[in-house]
Amino acid sequence: MSIKFANRMENLKASEIRELLKLTEKPEVISFAGGLPAPELFPVDQMKEVAQKVLEEGGTQALQYATTEGFIPLRKLIAKRMNEKFKTNVDESNILIISGSQQGLDFSGKIFLNEGDVVLCESPSYLGALNAFKAYGPKFIEVPTDENGMIMEELEKILETTENVKMIYVIPDFQNPTGRTWPIERRKKFMEIVAKYEVPVIEDNPYGELRFEGEILPSLKSMDEKGLVVFLGTFSKTFCPGLRVGWVAADHNILEKYIMIKQSADLQTSTIAQREIAKFMEIYDLDEHVEKIKKVYKKRRDLMINTIKEEFPQGLKYTYPEGGLFTWVELPSHINARDVLIKCLENNVAFVPGGSFFPNGGKENTFRLNYSNMPEDKIVEGVKRLGKVLREFI
Amino acid sequence: MSIKFANRMENLKASEIRELLKLTEKPEVISFAGGLPAPELFPVDQMKEVAQKVLEEGGTQALQYATTEGFIPLRKLIAKRMNEKFKTNVDESNILIISGSQQGLDFSGKIFLNEGDVVLCESPSYLGALNAFKAYGPKFIEVPTDENGMIMEELEKILETTENVKMIYVIPDFQNPTGRTWPIERRKKFMEIVAKYEVPVIEDNPYGELRFEGEILPSLKSMDEKGLVVFLGTFSKTFCPGLRVGWVAADHNILEKYIMIKQSADLQTSTIAQREIAKFMEIYDLDEHVEKIKKVYKKRRDLMINTIKEEFPQGLKYTYPEGGLFTWVELPSHINARDVLIKCLENNVAFVPGGSFFPNGGKENTFRLNYSNMPEDKIVEGVKRLGKVLREFI
Repeated sequence: MSIKFANRMENLKASEIRELLKLTEKPEVISFAGGLPAPELFPVDQMKEVAQKVLEEGGTQALQYATTEGFIPLRKLIAKRMNEKFKTNVDESNILIISGSQQGLDFSGKIFLNEGDVVLCESPSYLGALNAFKAYGPKFIEVPTDENGMIMEELEKILETTENVKMIYVIPDFQNPTGRTWPIERRKKFMEIVAKYEVPVIEDNPYGELRFEGEILPSLKSMDEKGLVVFLGTFSKTFCPGLRVGWVAADHNILEKYIMIKQSADLQTSTIAQREIAKFMEIYDLDEHVEKIKKVYKKRRDLMINTIKEEFPQGLKYTYPEGGLFTWVELPSHINARDVLIKCLENNVAFVPGGSFFPNGGKENTFRLNYSNMPEDKIVEGVKRLGKVLREFI
Repeated sequence: MSIKFANRMENLKASEIRELLKLTEKPEVISFAGGLPAPELFPVDQMKEVAQKVLEEGGTQALQYATTEGFIPLRKLIAKRMNEKFKTNVDESNILIISGSQQGLDFSGKIFLNEGDVVLCESPSYLGALNAFKAYGPKFIEVPTDENGMIMEELEKILETTENVKMIYVIPDFQNPTGRTWPIERRKKFMEIVAKYEVPVIEDNPYGELRFEGEILPSLKSMDEKGLVVFLGTFSKTFCPGLRVGWVAADHNILEKYIMIKQSADLQTSTIAQREIAKFMEIYDLDEHVEKIKKVYKKRRDLMINTIKEEFPQGLKYTYPEGGLFTWVELPSHINARDVLIKCLENNVAFVPGGSFFPNGGKENTFRLNYSNMPEDKIVEGVKRLGKVLREFI
């Protein structure tokens, strides 16, 4: 007997990389593969207090169903924070609480994409987003990038000549996987082009606040005069991912679609998790907590980049991220990073090969390194192991 | 400027009933409309203790990302409980944790349905499931029901003559909206038919444990020799909905699809919520807690049915639920329950008109009453108000 699944399930195959990366769970492996925050920075003691307060002050409400849109005080805090950090002009009526920004990616595919529609994205782009969109059967067109992110001339060329572009997906701040950030001029140019072609934009911003040097750049949403930008935010990188709380910020005519989809998808995000985050922001200083995270991650970034300089073979390209969680390495074009990974796993060090970040394939000579999740000594040791393997290949 | 949404968004219109029911949020309204548990029964003090323990014993893990499949100790506890209560034969490898069973409904649509495929469901059926499925563009065929649930001769007739039936969606225990339960013979017959036609079944079981009299009946999943049944469970009715934790139980070849979809939809369900529920089940007795709920709901059911007998016009049909949260009322066919609702709202009492529980429309002379969420005095007063309005109509 064979059960008939929907055609879309054909687009979603279990990845061989995922199988390989299961090997990284062994404690002896130094893994730069995941995108995990540093757990030693989680505010565990404060969360104990916050959990008590939320249950004392409104236990029955915290454990009950609540509205699909989300907890109003949290939506207000988010709107205020976005306006401060990302120069937007939103209020709580523009905010929908979702279960991590990954959910916003799935909803975006569901809301905008018919089978065969075109999604534009940076080349490379975030694997989890590509997988979420794939369930809706789009064609991906990758917009070429340089060290400053998406190249605007290339974007315009594609928009001029392509039908059915329904959505542009971008991560302008410390992009996953490359760690690159778009400068302000490029953001302005992007919004000019987008306004001309009137294409909805998904601005995925999980890392924007984690900037180690210089000022946070204005978000695309802050330059969005036509209401085309859907901003996805999350507490997973600035607070704790285990609560699964993120948000969508959009103009009302778009946000109402997300609310409708949220309701049929899972009714609402955890009432108690929403109240706990709001309570934390009320009695503690989230900025202070983010400062702590940035200090640690900056140190780790410096350590990783410096050790790469010392230990990697000469002439390899890698990015210098000004924030976020990742750097991106490019090997000579004849080397396949999957082969390197297999060798690395034998040496108890791991990363994610870059190939799967390109929705249409190619660029197998790249890989992503995470520096947020490993303590300093392991970063040094891991990069050394990696360097040793790379010297064998090159 | 007009943004182009996906065609599927056409299937999902904001409901006028939803707008009407917003009026029930006023404190003076006695609402039998929602499907909310009684909040005064939530174990708030125990949850305080549980939250502390989870953060003390493994705070950093509780706040970190975790596997898509879910927290293994919780999956084991669920498998054990299902086997005890519902006579299944599952282990943790058959369980995926999801964010409430509503998420399992959305995933089921996504996994099984192409546009135009046929879904069979009871007539009437749960509105939230119908809405979740609608996003995938199916045709609904409603299988006629009687006081014992789905009529098997009708089901077989439909299966014999219909192509592309991809899924059968049923709620055999204290159905939403009717409160009806399928007797054991009908369950057996159903599984015989299903095995013959080899159609996947979504067995939605949020209320099964809330049986006020007699024994819990064996689930369809317990009679599933061909691995066709996907069982959806939840802690929302036996524990607290605000945590948003439910589960899918299925054979491996189906469960792996749900895991894949879960990962692209939202990565995983809240780590801390999963650990809290597991901890509660470890240090407290969930059975004892369910007994408390049943006692209160039984009292409220009795009170509602007895007051209906006294206060409603003679000759109206209504169901006598042996468990769960709802009873279902049928008015003479010329009366539209939406008109009754408008009049009721003027008298500060509310319910959900039945029309929207029929995916293909019709039966506007029906409505659903919830008895779990209102205290005893309000049940009596509310049914009296309702009776008064009904007498004006009849």
